[in-house]
Amino acid sequence: MTDGPDPSPADPAARAGLHVVALGSALVDVLAPASDADLEALALVKGSMALVDRGKSSALYERMVSAVEVSGGSAANTVAGIAALGGAAGLVCKVGDDTFGDVFVHDLEATGVRLGRMQRATAAAGGGATGHCLVFVTPDGQRTMATHLGVAATLRPDDVDEDLVSRAQVVYLEGYLWDLAPAKAALRRAIEVAHAGDGLVALTVSDPFCVERHRREFLDLLHDDVDVLFANEQEAISLFGTGSSGIGSSGTGSSGTGSFDAAVAAVGETGLLAALTRGAAGSVVVAAHGAVAVPAVPAEAVVDTTGAGDLYAAGFLHGLTHGLDPEACARLGAVCAAEVISHLGARPRGDLAELARAAGIAV
Amino acid sequence: MTDGPDPSPADPAARAGLHVVALGSALVDVLAPASDADLEALALVKGSMALVDRGKSSALYERMVSAVEVSGGSAANTVAGIAALGGAAGLVCKVGDDTFGDVFVHDLEATGVRLGRMQRATAAAGGGATGHCLVFVTPDGQRTMATHLGVAATLRPDDVDEDLVSRAQVVYLEGYLWDLAPAKAALRRAIEVAHAGDGLVALTVSDPFCVERHRREFLDLLHDDVDVLFANEQEAISLFGTGSSGIGSSGTGSSGTGSFDAAVAAVGETGLLAALTRGAAGSVVVAAHGAVAVPAVPAEAVVDTTGAGDLYAAGFLHGLTHGLDPEACARLGAVCAAEVISHLGARPRGDLAELARAAGIAV
Repeated sequence: MTDGPDPSPADPAARAGLHVVALGSALVDVLAPASDADLEALALVKGSMALVDRGKSSALYERMVSAVEVSGGSAANTVAGIAALGGAAGLVCKVGDDTFGDVFVHDLEATGVRLGRMQRATAAAGGGATGHCLVFVTPDGQRTMATHLGVAATLRPDDVDEDLVSRAQVVYLEGYLWDLAPAKAALRRAIEVAHAGDGLVALTVSDPFCVERHRREFLDLLHDDVDVLFANEQEAISLFGTGSSGIGSSGTGSSGTGSFDAAVAAVGETGLLAALTRGAAGSVVVAAHGAVAVPAVPAEAVVDTTGAGDLYAAGFLHGLTHGLDPEACARLGAVCAAEVISHLGARPRGDLAELARAAGIAV
Repeated sequence: MTDGPDPSPADPAARAGLHVVALGSALVDVLAPASDADLEALALVKGSMALVDRGKSSALYERMVSAVEVSGGSAANTVAGIAALGGAAGLVCKVGDDTFGDVFVHDLEATGVRLGRMQRATAAAGGGATGHCLVFVTPDGQRTMATHLGVAATLRPDDVDEDLVSRAQVVYLEGYLWDLAPAKAALRRAIEVAHAGDGLVALTVSDPFCVERHRREFLDLLHDDVDVLFANEQEAISLFGTGSSGIGSSGTGSSGTGSFDAAVAAVGETGLLAALTRGAAGSVVVAAHGAVAVPAVPAEAVVDTTGAGDLYAAGFLHGLTHGLDPEACARLGAVCAAEVISHLGARPRGDLAELARAAGIAV
């Protein structure tokens, strides 16, 4: 017994380095089948993620039949994937003091992810509910999302567990959080902590509409603070202004090969390490020595593409923190993405480490 | 505006007859993959349902990775299936005032099932949590369950919505409820209400261990109060005492064809309409004019057998309340069971009414 704080924490593992620590939204996904006509009737843009208030979320939820609940959240899916690969990962997020919060925490801790310190204020104390994401899965496996952030929307700088973040080789930031001023400040706090040490900063721009909303700020961030960029084809084109008229009017966009090549060239000039994903067409990695295309790993059957980008990032970052070259990182990303799209839900079910070994990737 | 209660309810639909009203446990299923070795390490008997207290449930939950949450509950699955077939169904059950309770109520109402009046007492008011059922799914598609009933264990006669029950052609009782004295009294209340009108009473004995615990009382109930019996092969053998040494010691039992034939003969003497299910071997229907075997409908791939018996009962009861003969009822049951075992979770996802039409069953 001592009178003051313990000067030497008993558990050395609690001070050990981590491969990746992410900042992201804690969400429980509610998945249900939907037709293209359903999406139109619900005024949802296929393939996008819309932020909705509680009323809209409730109205949409009423229309969902055969719903399945599973832990989600983009960055949370990524760290769950890293843990499944055998990496040491952490997450900074906020959940409510409710059943969904219990489920979210359980599902991450069961994979071995370390959670930053959290105060789970009850709804009665103004804490709000755990966020949830309504995912409409069309027969082609595409998903269209409506997210009610709940308490995840209240992430602010004070919630950043600086000790956890300082231990990371890579701090991974979820672009969705840029929509909220206090969360944006929290991301900036995490960047400061990472750069005060030797940490790299990785950013996923998360969604084409998210890029539309924050293009200027994202470009500044990439220039000044980010080391590794994750974007899909449409996001990359939108981000680097090489698309024709943006995506606002056309919905799914009309991204010709030409404008993607221009985006790749523009990324090359930034000096970033970038992984640009193209769904079934694989990904393009842009590194100091040029760009290289890496094919996708075919999935036996595409059941639900939710989490494909998140798990690609998991494989890529796990490779990066284990000494793989960028092309091998992208191959590991492809292996992980193929696993997650073969079943419902955005967290891995298979043994990712075994899949990596089977693919000849040694990590 | 009137000063007293409204003597003529405005909504005639609220007074219309219902095909089936069930009494059952309101449970949210938590499904996760497991190996046979996992089951052994967790001291769970493969294929069975064990009731566990909160502490044991928490300890088991900690061991589940890649968990998926979905509404369940045996009788609730059955009425959801009846609604998916186009039938008018209701459920008497109890949920807590928590997120899982919201999910459970939403999922049933989205299918069109009418819920009996419910008081959703908060945990703070001693109401308890919504029940949940941990489902371990082995690679062969079999499920092993550990159920913490939570507030579902507090069902009592006062909770029986007599108005709802009195409107049913068939009142369907979940045998699991017989484990709890107040719930047993609630079942008896529902039987009285059904028999005070023209309602038939159907019983599923739910689980081989449930039969072991209540064989004498179940036989009395079948003799005096039940019109339609649902049991699987193992349960039928155990119920009619034609097995060699019961299931207590052998786990999965050693049910030879001989003892099943004896059970069928014993059922025939009771005068009950009985549907005895045998998994992939189909079912045997015992009616006044004798017994007939009905083959199973092959599933393209068996993903998860959770709900197979529940959906068989849905098809059978929907046929029964739409004028089908017993053999056709069993065929409709087989169609519904095949759908639910082809995906994760115990509620139908496909269009059951369309599947029935495709199978040439007109209801």
